[in-house]
Amino acid sequence: MAEYIAPIQRLIEEFRRLPGVGAKTAARYAFATLELTDEQTARFADAITAIKRDVHRCPICFSLSVSCEMCEICASEDRDTSVICVVEDAKDVMVMERVRGYKGVYHVLGGALSPIDNITAQDLTFAELVDRVKSTEVREVIIATNPTPGGDTTAAYLARILEPYEVRVSRLAYGIPVGGDIEYADEVTLSRAMEGRRFF
Amino acid sequence: MAEYIAPIQRLIEEFRRLPGVGAKTAARYAFATLELTDEQTARFADAITAIKRDVHRCPICFSLSVSCEMCEICASEDRDTSVICVVEDAKDVMVMERVRGYKGVYHVLGGALSPIDNITAQDLTFAELVDRVKSTEVREVIIATNPTPGGDTTAAYLARILEPYEVRVSRLAYGIPVGGDIEYADEVTLSRAMEGRRFF
Repeated sequence: MAEYIAPIQRLIEEFRRLPGVGAKTAARYAFATLELTDEQTARFADAITAIKRDVHRCPICFSLSVSCEMCEICASEDRDTSVICVVEDAKDVMVMERVRGYKGVYHVLGGALSPIDNITAQDLTFAELVDRVKSTEVREVIIATNPTPGGDTTAAYLARILEPYEVRVSRLAYGIPVGGDIEYADEVTLSRAMEGRRFF
Repeated sequence: MAEYIAPIQRLIEEFRRLPGVGAKTAARYAFATLELTDEQTARFADAITAIKRDVHRCPICFSLSVSCEMCEICASEDRDTSVICVVEDAKDVMVMERVRGYKGVYHVLGGALSPIDNITAQDLTFAELVDRVKSTEVREVIIATNPTPGGDTTAAYLARILEPYEVRVSRLAYGIPVGGDIEYADEVTLSRAMEGRRFF
């Protein structure tokens, strides 16, 4: 049902690709875009193009990086590379970085194990994590997967595959609401969860 | 506080221009954009650019048009140009068009009178509406401004400036929405529904 003129309808359909955006919200966004100045829409369009062009994966931790080389955290000399915090997604790195106290590095799995969605160990960066543990001096791996069934399975799997190595494996304490998402946790909760981490 | 790498932060700030989008929603949208394919982001960026380039105002009714000339409704031979429905915004035209029965034309004011926001009669297309009423054969003007203080003021003002001309001026009925429940209707709506009651 094309209710709007073509250029508006087209933009509405693009906005609908965004998470949680239905037809009415998308229409609201499209009309708001129409109210922007030419310069503002040019900047908006360019920012969308730039995000694909300028964002890369760090070859070490798989977090997001502005260059094709190491990310800022892996490249930093102030970080303790003997502690690796394992997260599901790259955005979780940015969330964890708000916890000022943490000085270790990260490892982004690229998701959580999920038989329903057909995500198996091969789809995630477990092998690369094991390589890091084997080839560099790692004292501790802190598992910061989400407190969801998928995150729990992933944490248990990680604890098992890291067992043969001389490394302490811990997981963030509950403090993050069960069934929630790390992305939405506040800094204090995250910081408490960090302090109270339990060793396997 | 730049928590994310620059290209992501930049897109987050662009998304925050959209109505009702805060920092967290904008971040969610930015990460979702990152997951799109190159082709999809190119189409998204292009749709934003296109909306400013391809959408114009109809010189007669000020509704949106894909050309610099008359909009589809004003150009159509099937529309009754002697009935003008006056709305606040261009998007209201599209909403009214869902009412299948209406065969008249439109006039977009470009907002409602609002002393607080400094919107006076000069900022809206009242003069152009009066010109249309004077120069063409208009039988009826249906005021479809919103049932808000601003819309009410605008409707009253319109009724007064159209008084000197041979034209019937009406306004959309207020009442309980179809499918609604009297129990949940507010007092003002109920009182208006009472006033506008129809006799069998």
